[in-house]
Amino acid sequence: MPTLTSNEYSLITNVMSLCCAAMLAGALFFYYSRSQVAHQYRPALLISALVPTIACYHYFRIYDSFSHAYTLANGVYTASGLPFNDAYRYADWLLTVPLLVIELVAVLALPSNVSRRLIIKLSSAAALMIALGYPGEVSHEATTRWIFWGLSMTPWVFIMITLFTEFTEAYSRQTSEVKSLVGAARGLLLLTWSFYPIAFLSPMLGFSGGVAECGLQVGYTIADIVAKVGLGIFIYMIAIAKSQADGYEGDAPTRSKAVTA
Amino acid sequence: MPTLTSNEYSLITNVMSLCCAAMLAGALFFYYSRSQVAHQYRPALLISALVPTIACYHYFRIYDSFSHAYTLANGVYTASGLPFNDAYRYADWLLTVPLLVIELVAVLALPSNVSRRLIIKLSSAAALMIALGYPGEVSHEATTRWIFWGLSMTPWVFIMITLFTEFTEAYSRQTSEVKSLVGAARGLLLLTWSFYPIAFLSPMLGFSGGVAECGLQVGYTIADIVAKVGLGIFIYMIAIAKSQADGYEGDAPTRSKAVTA
Repeated sequence: MPTLTSNEYSLITNVMSLCCAAMLAGALFFYYSRSQVAHQYRPALLISALVPTIACYHYFRIYDSFSHAYTLANGVYTASGLPFNDAYRYADWLLTVPLLVIELVAVLALPSNVSRRLIIKLSSAAALMIALGYPGEVSHEATTRWIFWGLSMTPWVFIMITLFTEFTEAYSRQTSEVKSLVGAARGLLLLTWSFYPIAFLSPMLGFSGGVAECGLQVGYTIADIVAKVGLGIFIYMIAIAKSQADGYEGDAPTRSKAVTA
Repeated sequence: MPTLTSNEYSLITNVMSLCCAAMLAGALFFYYSRSQVAHQYRPALLISALVPTIACYHYFRIYDSFSHAYTLANGVYTASGLPFNDAYRYADWLLTVPLLVIELVAVLALPSNVSRRLIIKLSSAAALMIALGYPGEVSHEATTRWIFWGLSMTPWVFIMITLFTEFTEAYSRQTSEVKSLVGAARGLLLLTWSFYPIAFLSPMLGFSGGVAECGLQVGYTIADIVAKVGLGIFIYMIAIAKSQADGYEGDAPTRSKAVTA
């Protein structure tokens, strides 16, 4: 662990703590928003809530692990000797990244055969992508890191191709409002997911020391907030737009049901 | 950290702890009150619940950080050497202050184009206001503090102008009861939000030592309770008044479904 100035250490831990709060708030928003959308879109919002719940748990662990890995002496933060367990990030991604692609497909409420095929394809590729990245992350040899980076990028490219071909076709019959929201959500996914393979490369490209550590930790954390809570907000907007298009106005108030009877 | 008498230290930590409890209770009240209001006002109550949830989390962190920053020796509390992380307040405000203006607009259930414009304008100005205040807060130079105070006050003034012009116009067609409640909520916001820039100035105006620290910490904490839970109570009253005006009397019991069948 590189030595950090007081400001670098504060920035990293404050962004990690902010992330805990943002994930908590995001999760609660998605859990409680299920009743604002029609029945068939609620599973997508539920999955959108699980993702920041899992991330909130992991960021508590990451925050604790990071703060125990440092001690304050003479105004600077130096390695305490306890290791910083970066693997919490991989454990988090192994669970949440497949769920992110599932929520994006689930909110469209496609015919079940189309939906099932897309979900199996995208979520297994997502899990493979994370699993193949990990042996590279824990290695200190540049060659090993490059090999696993390449292996991990194969499912990454496969996911993007699927999202821009088969997935695009699957939502082509939606209303124009829904189509533009889904397009934006897919763009957000492409943008945030591009950050991770670039950050992975940083030690091989010669970035090291306090500033690099700061950039990496803050970057991963912000990318996680945007990829998880940000994508969830798009899923919420898509579910609201589709519910309105379906004529859903909330569960029936007492009177109107009695009239039906 | 200035040395504190036992009474000063107790007052600060007790007010912080009271704040954790008040935020928790406020959050739970707003979550569970959603079912008391009509469908379209529930997102506003949900956001009103997220705000004290986020604040409750941060006040746990603030309480811990503050108590670790002091040690008791010879009946007085002196700096332990561990820093008090005041940045938790800024992380909290960065998330909650934009949400406060969003809940105030959302509860009116305005036409979506009017609502969206107001929300984007007010929430981005609110986030900018907090982000611009932070570099001043962490600086020990009076000039830097004054510069960022001025920069941060620009969005503050913009928000107030928008609330007293465009926002006032947007709710002009509401019932007189709703109008007076919204006016009061806006007044509460103006009043509580005025405290923060004044408190920010206190070190530059020569206030320091135990009494000043006490005033600052207790002041920020009380302002946060009133701004968050207090505003939420107004949002709740507005949502109840509007639901009653819409003739809402609760959701349908299950039985009517059997009758329909």
